[in-house]
Amino acid sequence: MSDFTPPLKDMNFALEHIGDLGAVSRLDGFEFADPETVEGILSEAGRFFSEVVAPLNQVGDQQGSVLKPDGSVQTPDGFKEAYAKFVEAGWGGAHIPEKWGGGGLPYTVGIAIQEMFKTSNMAFSLCPMLTQAAIESLIAHGTDEQRGMFLEKLVSGVWTGTMCLTEPGAGSDVGALTTKAIRQEDGTYRITGQKIFLTWGDQDLTDNIIHLVLARTPGSPPGTRGISMFVVPKVLVGSDGSLGERNDVTVVSLEHKLGIHASPTCVLAFGDDGEGAVGYLIGDENAGMKYMFTMMNTARIGVGIEGLAVGERSFQQALGYSLERKQGRALGSDPKQSSPIIDHPDIRRMLMTMKAYNEAMRSLLYTVASQIDFERHGADDATRVAAAEKVALLTPVTKAWNTDMGVELTSIGLQVHGGMGYVEETGSAQHFRDARIAPIYEGTNGIQAIDLVLRKLPMRDGQVVEGHLEAIGRTVQDLEEFPGIRKALAKSLDRLTEATQWLGMKLGESSYNEALAGATPYLRIFGQVTGGWLMARQALAAKALLDEGEGNAEWLKAKIATARFYCEQLMPQTDGLVAAVTAGEEPLFEIDPAMLSG
Amino acid sequence: MSDFTPPLKDMNFALEHIGDLGAVSRLDGFEFADPETVEGILSEAGRFFSEVVAPLNQVGDQQGSVLKPDGSVQTPDGFKEAYAKFVEAGWGGAHIPEKWGGGGLPYTVGIAIQEMFKTSNMAFSLCPMLTQAAIESLIAHGTDEQRGMFLEKLVSGVWTGTMCLTEPGAGSDVGALTTKAIRQEDGTYRITGQKIFLTWGDQDLTDNIIHLVLARTPGSPPGTRGISMFVVPKVLVGSDGSLGERNDVTVVSLEHKLGIHASPTCVLAFGDDGEGAVGYLIGDENAGMKYMFTMMNTARIGVGIEGLAVGERSFQQALGYSLERKQGRALGSDPKQSSPIIDHPDIRRMLMTMKAYNEAMRSLLYTVASQIDFERHGADDATRVAAAEKVALLTPVTKAWNTDMGVELTSIGLQVHGGMGYVEETGSAQHFRDARIAPIYEGTNGIQAIDLVLRKLPMRDGQVVEGHLEAIGRTVQDLEEFPGIRKALAKSLDRLTEATQWLGMKLGESSYNEALAGATPYLRIFGQVTGGWLMARQALAAKALLDEGEGNAEWLKAKIATARFYCEQLMPQTDGLVAAVTAGEEPLFEIDPAMLSG
Repeated sequence: MSDFTPPLKDMNFALEHIGDLGAVSRLDGFEFADPETVEGILSEAGRFFSEVVAPLNQVGDQQGSVLKPDGSVQTPDGFKEAYAKFVEAGWGGAHIPEKWGGGGLPYTVGIAIQEMFKTSNMAFSLCPMLTQAAIESLIAHGTDEQRGMFLEKLVSGVWTGTMCLTEPGAGSDVGALTTKAIRQEDGTYRITGQKIFLTWGDQDLTDNIIHLVLARTPGSPPGTRGISMFVVPKVLVGSDGSLGERNDVTVVSLEHKLGIHASPTCVLAFGDDGEGAVGYLIGDENAGMKYMFTMMNTARIGVGIEGLAVGERSFQQALGYSLERKQGRALGSDPKQSSPIIDHPDIRRMLMTMKAYNEAMRSLLYTVASQIDFERHGADDATRVAAAEKVALLTPVTKAWNTDMGVELTSIGLQVHGGMGYVEETGSAQHFRDARIAPIYEGTNGIQAIDLVLRKLPMRDGQVVEGHLEAIGRTVQDLEEFPGIRKALAKSLDRLTEATQWLGMKLGESSYNEALAGATPYLRIFGQVTGGWLMARQALAAKALLDEGEGNAEWLKAKIATARFYCEQLMPQTDGLVAAVTAGEEPLFEIDPAMLSG
Repeated sequence: MSDFTPPLKDMNFALEHIGDLGAVSRLDGFEFADPETVEGILSEAGRFFSEVVAPLNQVGDQQGSVLKPDGSVQTPDGFKEAYAKFVEAGWGGAHIPEKWGGGGLPYTVGIAIQEMFKTSNMAFSLCPMLTQAAIESLIAHGTDEQRGMFLEKLVSGVWTGTMCLTEPGAGSDVGALTTKAIRQEDGTYRITGQKIFLTWGDQDLTDNIIHLVLARTPGSPPGTRGISMFVVPKVLVGSDGSLGERNDVTVVSLEHKLGIHASPTCVLAFGDDGEGAVGYLIGDENAGMKYMFTMMNTARIGVGIEGLAVGERSFQQALGYSLERKQGRALGSDPKQSSPIIDHPDIRRMLMTMKAYNEAMRSLLYTVASQIDFERHGADDATRVAAAEKVALLTPVTKAWNTDMGVELTSIGLQVHGGMGYVEETGSAQHFRDARIAPIYEGTNGIQAIDLVLRKLPMRDGQVVEGHLEAIGRTVQDLEEFPGIRKALAKSLDRLTEATQWLGMKLGESSYNEALAGATPYLRIFGQVTGGWLMARQALAAKALLDEGEGNAEWLKAKIATARFYCEQLMPQTDGLVAAVTAGEEPLFEIDPAMLSG
């Protein structure tokens, strides 16, 4: 079992130098969130999550959430008490505007708080994450009455929310869903259908759960153009906010999953016992898919946090083990006693790899998070549009690259433990199992790659991605004092540029399958190089502080060493992927499926 | 749940064109094992493993082997019956010389049979694999009496064997073990101590289990120079072969593991109830470590098979799912209906990646296996020595590269299933969990990399590895008709050569830590390029057959397409690792451990 120590030094450094917290806190309404105040808030949040939530990570995995004979879900020991403390402390609504009952903090700070929740207990963190998606939908598209009825309790966490999208025949293809919604004379709707893969679809933490459900009204157009969004509370709510009768929403079963066992993944039936569950339309009919996209970006970034979260937790555990476990003798060490395994070069390489990727993922997350603040609160249209474009470009990369890295890093963390890593009680295997869902849900990483190539590269005729590449190029110019980083970043940028131009050419020719064939390796290069750019900028920031004699010199030197390791040893590993990006579709489809089986 | 179809076409092709089965069957004593006969044997073995053993893979995972209150192990439903059929069919001893009761087949054929056992049920296959290690030790170092007492029953599989090496403080560092062996007046020894991580350390399949135990005699030298090897039967055996009293070997507990649940991983206590378990010395005192190395190579190759086995099983399941599951519309397909997901480029890329790596792993395994036959049965010393050198060089690569790829491929296979991949009942997650042990046991992959760099590169002053690189270079010359493969292989060979020369220089300077710092990325490049070399040779062989109008043209074209995909799109992915190989130790050790935590 592993403890969790919030990596506050790195978080604060990345917030200041990459997340641009100084500029964020100068935005209208965020003046109170100056870096010093934020540091205090994060320190307090870190204390809460490490002390209250992290100790429940392993018991949550071992017990899991279970379906009781009465059809309700029982969460693992301690979850109910911890959740009550979470609500009391108000962490769930920290970055929701004050007018809706939240703490009014910048999104950038909210991401850092979420990061600590997820690192302390990924399965538990999914509950508030889904609640947040429901909150965002209601703020953006709900009526005043709906907001009045649900919003305050969701923001405080007194109730939780879910997103009910997926059906057995409608996963990546949301437009294929068949759940029905029929309008009643009183303006409400009756919902019938079955939804699957509902994260925290039921629980015993709160009195009510607010489901956001995608369904079709009669005569709606086929595909995504005919989807509407509904609020369907588990327990009906009176106009005075009081709880009434149970709505017709029942838990059919829970999935038996590889990981995130504490998170109940439900099959829910709507309207199984009668004429349908009572639902309230959000916004307009047939606009549900548009509303989904409103919150999809932030949900995808939320999942991107998970790649870092499991990577960080796994790293902390592996580091702790490597300091304690003695085995063999490192060259040059005392021949009379065994060395801690951290003294072996191969173990050190594994730890450095984890550390470097974690720091790169964190800086990518904070980059996107701060752009979300600029998008929402920027002083002028130009600022807001430019920020929105950056968010759009980087969101699929943050989701997919981070979560792929999460799987790789937790695998390395397990390997550091040797045979003990394979024993469940050690706890390292849990991170490996938990990590594996993140490349799948909230749009598989293949879908993210399609989004990046088909929707994001063409933005503003390719100028958005060009702007990103130019920003990296400017950093290359700044790196005179780090010739190793400079050379590696320049080379990797060339490869990324080459791949981008090839895809741009294919998109220009409307050769979409040619472009799609290279989408996944392209996203990988994009993430790897963007991570290198952000690590290089951190090296520059650390150097500037060192030159000024500010900060902890040892820590700043470690940051520079980590940036060098990332850029000089890890980043070049995707340079060779350009061949896969530019190979086109023919090599993928050359073999008839019947011949694939060998 | 997935079926298993033995990939006999690819196996036979690789045996003929890479495993050099024609030449193997011309070795003294193997004349009967001509390719046609072998094809028949493999077809029969394939039928057996797919029909009898493969259906037990999922139940084995779900039930697992359990420790009963009486201290004995109970295997999952059906294992006992299937094992009896396995013994009856004689598959376990297929490649053991006839003089010891085996089938007398070449090792190359034995590997192909083991591959099918492991692909059908990895956890189950570990039992005969360990038995085989015990057989090899007894053949090589046992007395006539010991062989007479144990060998026939082990070869037939009537009894099984184990390897008892690891102790809580002695994992990768075998020399740290403390189990004691005290010689008695009758020449037997009494063994006391506790061993951990004992694969199939107890079971209910057979009446007896023959443990091979490493222990120290009083006054033995410290470290690996003071280790002796003992046979310790679970049940004592009379001189007439009859079973007598239980020996003092008890199961303390079973590990609760991430995967291979059907394989009971035991903690065993020797001599807990009295003056020690009865053991018989194998060979000389203090020579146990040398004997361990005898069988370690074949055990490591056996684990290397597992990377392919889980990769192949996961591929077959993913391929099947991708043909059935419909979701979204592929570009250019009928807009009125959903496409099978195999029509999406990204899914096809995942499948091609799995297929290509599996075929590369298979050809690497057969390369090593045939060299083992030449090492053992070559007509002259020069042949035998040259083969032994190739086996020594390629063994750590086969173990580590294959098993790393096994983890990556099973992760891809799970991803092909989307959300269903994360649900345990689907069965894909089992392969991902099972795969994760193989980079750890039988020497972690970090240990393999150390072995490759510190022991194998210096063989014959570097001429062995040079010979390997030259062989790849000759294939580059042969590739006029495959310019894409040729260019990629030439480039990757240059990078491998560069890395090899850098390591040779550091070893020449006795800068061992410099070399060790790059060992793991070096092994990865070595495996990736060697795989490319073998795929390129298969493309050449397929082309020759096509030109002659022989064989199944569709199948041969698919082989060429797969080789091109491997060499042109996958192989270049490690070119960028050279930077990590040649960076040396300083970047790994620059940060003080206390500063690593961030």
